[in-house]
Amino acid sequence: MLQQLFSPSVQHTLDVIGIFVFAISGALMGVRKNFDVFGIAVLAEVTALGGGLFRDLIIGAVPPAAFTDLGYFITPLLAALMVVFLHPHVERIQVAVNVFDAAGLGLFCVAGTIKAYEYGLGLTQSATLGLATAVGGGVLRDVLANEVPSLLRWDRDLYAVPAIVGSTMAVLCLRYDVLTPVTSGLAVVTAFVLRLLAMKYHWRAPRAWNRRSTVREE
Amino acid sequence: MLQQLFSPSVQHTLDVIGIFVFAISGALMGVRKNFDVFGIAVLAEVTALGGGLFRDLIIGAVPPAAFTDLGYFITPLLAALMVVFLHPHVERIQVAVNVFDAAGLGLFCVAGTIKAYEYGLGLTQSATLGLATAVGGGVLRDVLANEVPSLLRWDRDLYAVPAIVGSTMAVLCLRYDVLTPVTSGLAVVTAFVLRLLAMKYHWRAPRAWNRRSTVREE
Amino acid sequence: MLQQLFSPSVQHTLDVIGIFVFAISGALMGVRKNFDVFGIAVLAEVTALGGGLFRDLIIGAVPPAAFTDLGYFITPLLAALMVVFLHPHVERIQVAVNVFDAAGLGLFCVAGTIKAYEYGLGLTQSATLGLATAVGGGVLRDVLANEVPSLLRWDRDLYAVPAIVGSTMAVLCLRYDVLTPVTSGLAVVTAFVLRLLAMKYHWRAPRAWNRRSTVREE
Repeated sequence: MLQQLFSPSVQHTLDVIGIFVFAISGALMGVRKNFDVFGIAVLAEVTALGGGLFRDLIIGAVPPAAFTDLGYFITPLLAALMVVFLHPHVERIQVAVNVFDAAGLGLFCVAGTIKAYEYGLGLTQSATLGLATAVGGGVLRDVLANEVPSLLRWDRDLYAVPAIVGSTMAVLCLRYDVLTPVTSGLAVVTAFVLRLLAMKYHWRAPRAWNRRSTVREE
Repeated sequence: MLQQLFSPSVQHTLDVIGIFVFAISGALMGVRKNFDVFGIAVLAEVTALGGGLFRDLIIGAVPPAAFTDLGYFITPLLAALMVVFLHPHVERIQVAVNVFDAAGLGLFCVAGTIKAYEYGLGLTQSATLGLATAVGGGVLRDVLANEVPSLLRWDRDLYAVPAIVGSTMAVLCLRYDVLTPVTSGLAVVTAFVLRLLAMKYHWRAPRAWNRRSTVREE
Repeated sequence: MLQQLFSPSVQHTLDVIGIFVFAISGALMGVRKNFDVFGIAVLAEVTALGGGLFRDLIIGAVPPAAFTDLGYFITPLLAALMVVFLHPHVERIQVAVNVFDAAGLGLFCVAGTIKAYEYGLGLTQSATLGLATAVGGGVLRDVLANEVPSLLRWDRDLYAVPAIVGSTMAVLCLRYDVLTPVTSGLAVVTAFVLRLLAMKYHWRAPRAWNRRSTVREE
């Protein structure tokens, strides 16, 4: 059980932090798209809970955690409220938001992987669902905002790769039966740091081969 | 049980009416987007059944009602057929469509809330799923039509708020054990009337604080 | 059981072929939208597995086949890899891709219908889910690429209709208890050939009545 990795209250606190920072990214998108306060709240909820919701539907964990834990539901509303009243400040502290978002990415990819594995999925599939947990909410956010998902675009810093690394590390720990708070924490931190480095150095993934080779540098 | 609120046949009739009017809004969107008749039918189905489908997946009621009740499935096809042949008339009677859509909103938010509660969800979560039942189809309609969901836009009359009020009233009735055909009917009518008033007086929700205060009146 | 229709290995091979060609169409869309290699892989996965995933969630077959069969998961990655390195060639052989895609359409609409029926859905609903299995991945592909789903557009050759015919034939076989490898194969081939003919002769579905009658030929 995931609860054995960290004490339940620590785990819950980490989850809520991840939900909070993801919700802020959703709420900020709502502000940028000129949505009203309800639209901002909806986007905060979807961004924060969408990835875990998808995972829980796939593994058959219904009702999903998003609909059983009241704290998970209320946290995005608080984030939305904060953004509605303070959004120039939140945007000014975009760096801090990005750091927290990277932390959410690390937490969610590892926690999602472990939960999927607990529900009996294979190792590869568990890692895939861990990735989906971490990035799914952001994809839904962009779809609802009628934009091409940031995850898929080549002109954005690496986002999926750090989560893939974190999920893979978690799965290797499960495979070799060495999953402890230390090793899973290491997976979280690795994904977190990789994402920070990707943002700092603008690491990007290549595009399709022939396009890349024929397009001029711009 | 919901069936105890109204007689089963009355309940079913109300459901079918709600599905029908939501389907009309979906089919009209399909006409506006210049879709072919199959696209119009798909959009009618998705708009009418999408919200309930989402709710049923969340609460684990599979297969969802949309796939067990043949009437629920055929009704949107009839609505699509009607729109395909009569759409200038349907658009001319847009006022009537809006009134029915408001009725659908009221019916679905209350029925969705009660069904979620019956499946063991908490009060807040039940109200949230009631809201999702009422507005989910319209969001899917807009996503498939590649538009920003009308629900999220600040320049549209209040749509979520009437449903939130209706869901909340239903949840309070459940909480204080006073759910009867009269009280639940009252919740439906309240949401319905609020939506009508929102359309009549163009009630809108505020946007984010600082944006509103710095943007000139337009 | 579906496995009784074809030998399990034949059935699995057919599934993998269908997944492969759908994945190619997703990966090509990713190249066109200028996504990076991870975006291309995601789009390949979603296009290939999205329809079956939706079906499995609806009928309660969790975890869905896409998350239990490793071959189903890896096949789209291979397709994406191929497209990334060879995409001008893949585009040059667009005709071949279209033929395979038509084969995937035929296979998936029949296999989806039969699986839904096995899980206890009614005949009409089974046919509908068969259609959704065949076309769902393509719709998700277009939504993620931020385009109007090709399925819904009037200016595209018939795509849903061949799948509807195939699903209906499968359902009639189930209804009259004559489902054999021969009859189900006939349903697959019919859908396949109809799609090929629709592409060859640019068959299109009509739009809404009054629009069609008043718009000039263009």
